[in-house]
Amino acid sequence: MDRGAVVRITDVAALAGVSPSTVSKALNDTGSLRESTRARVREAAERLGFVPDASARSLSARRSFTVGLLSTDSAGRFSLPVVLGAENALVGGELSALLATARHDPVREQHHVRALVARRVDGIIVTGRTTEPREPIKVPMPVVYAFAPSSDADDASVVPDDALGMRLLVEHLVGLGRRRIAYVGGRAEQAASLVRYETLAAELAARDLAAVGEPLYGDWSEQWGRRAVDQILAGGPGSGRADGALPVDAIVFASDQLARGGCDRLRERGLRVPDDVAVTGYDDWDVMSLASRPPLTTVDMQLERLGQRAAELLIAAIEGDPARGVERLAPRLVVRASTLGDG
Amino acid sequence: MDRGAVVRITDVAALAGVSPSTVSKALNDTGSLRESTRARVREAAERLGFVPDASARSLSARRSFTVGLLSTDSAGRFSLPVVLGAENALVGGELSALLATARHDPVREQHHVRALVARRVDGIIVTGRTTEPREPIKVPMPVVYAFAPSSDADDASVVPDDALGMRLLVEHLVGLGRRRIAYVGGRAEQAASLVRYETLAAELAARDLAAVGEPLYGDWSEQWGRRAVDQILAGGPGSGRADGALPVDAIVFASDQLARGGCDRLRERGLRVPDDVAVTGYDDWDVMSLASRPPLTTVDMQLERLGQRAAELLIAAIEGDPARGVERLAPRLVVRASTLGDG
Repeated sequence: MDRGAVVRITDVAALAGVSPSTVSKALNDTGSLRESTRARVREAAERLGFVPDASARSLSARRSFTVGLLSTDSAGRFSLPVVLGAENALVGGELSALLATARHDPVREQHHVRALVARRVDGIIVTGRTTEPREPIKVPMPVVYAFAPSSDADDASVVPDDALGMRLLVEHLVGLGRRRIAYVGGRAEQAASLVRYETLAAELAARDLAAVGEPLYGDWSEQWGRRAVDQILAGGPGSGRADGALPVDAIVFASDQLARGGCDRLRERGLRVPDDVAVTGYDDWDVMSLASRPPLTTVDMQLERLGQRAAELLIAAIEGDPARGVERLAPRLVVRASTLGDG
Repeated sequence: MDRGAVVRITDVAALAGVSPSTVSKALNDTGSLRESTRARVREAAERLGFVPDASARSLSARRSFTVGLLSTDSAGRFSLPVVLGAENALVGGELSALLATARHDPVREQHHVRALVARRVDGIIVTGRTTEPREPIKVPMPVVYAFAPSSDADDASVVPDDALGMRLLVEHLVGLGRRRIAYVGGRAEQAASLVRYETLAAELAARDLAAVGEPLYGDWSEQWGRRAVDQILAGGPGSGRADGALPVDAIVFASDQLARGGCDRLRERGLRVPDDVAVTGYDDWDVMSLASRPPLTTVDMQLERLGQRAAELLIAAIEGDPARGVERLAPRLVVRASTLGDG
């Protein structure tokens, strides 16, 4: 080793076979490491003649190796997997996760933010219960927004790529020969309802097709999924009658709950899924997608992976390499009997 | 104030209108407090001539005001509300919650436990995904087990009172005049399946009644709920036939998922819930209990309250007043249309 070259923390990390943050912890006697790991790192640092510069050492010593996980969710349906994924990645990076749940209460959120700052966390991951953009928090440490992006485009956010998810669904349905596709969304004002419809319409248009009827919006309940099916069947000429064609050969629902209700109503109306009408959901929420009769073709937003990615971006930012803007994480198409049948 | 009397931290707390732990934090310059709170506490301490004794000060200074929340759950269905309730109560007590999820992996759990000890948490709350007793963790700080009790009777555990929940259901059904009650459990070897049946049998026996047939065990899916209904209807004389009585006038399911599947099958068999057969669930898991047709009469285990209670017991233990043994938290009967009809 050329003793004249600058030895970097990454060199020590490589020689010791650990991460840079482990090197930092070992040399600063912080964090929780096995004594054998500390010894190996010290030996590697000595062999390379590594001298942490004062500012780096002080920066490192100021680190708490703790990250705040701020969730505004109460039900936890979407934020829980994100939190679990983030916690998993943080622990892998030998950071601890301070949980703070605000439950849609701005006062509570402010309290949590102050407490996390007072605890001198190295950074904060903010999750939400919807994909609506949210006001950023103002703190003197790095922040990454997961699932619910920051409304400030300069902040780092990771969100599911809903447009890609819908593209995968349309490709799948059109590939199966479905041409008369209707759309049922959840609440009308929500991004999850709107983006999915816009993408569906654009993808169909690109194939010289159009969605059947206007998009239907209601809420996110199974009950609305059932009612929407009634509206669709009432809308078309000859709908449901033995002598006429059905107005649709596929219904794209914006969630698994909606799709499950839809399957139930189609069956109750004497129609076969997918033979008469193919059905797709969104979320791959197993208690819905697997319990549905038939089980649902749907999109897995990969929420744990999303939390993990947010943790990776946060760790990079803490180590001086911050990201900016919105990163969209690719979802996964999950094909089941609601489009393919039993065959 | 008699200057000869010993002034206690609780006296300072009372005068300043804060908790003893806030006094401790204010005088030791730890934790996150508003400056005005610290000033008020200092003033109160001065007025009362409060002198923290050395050991108390050192004890207090050694506190991290951080508690570990160790969850072995991956789905989070039961442990999430417990964790949220605990976090809520801890924040109220100005403690921070370090989240550690082990996902049924003993190696991961060991790693988490070591990390929490290295972080010098003041105590740990351990939650699980079932009510099966679990091996205690070995740590040098107080531990409270929530939902899944410790197998060591000397440890402090808080669990839902399943026997009381079942008593409330039986009282309700018998009060409505139901006499031929069958039971459908989840997995046969699990406490949640067994305790609920034993209580049902005992409560019926106390009223000179007996359950119809043997208890049926399977898994926790809606599909098993549907199949169990078929078995029950096949079992009785004249079951489902117009000329004969049904073998049951009520079915008690050990979960909302089972009960929801049961309601679906009863309807598909042309039977009316509750007119022909009343149905009860367990858990009050809203995506099941409210989406069921009809909505389910069920038992709310009060899991958030359970987490909150675990936090209270842990805070008491940290402050030198540990509890022992299993505390059973009263659940709440939730009556809906599956027993009462629309009327």
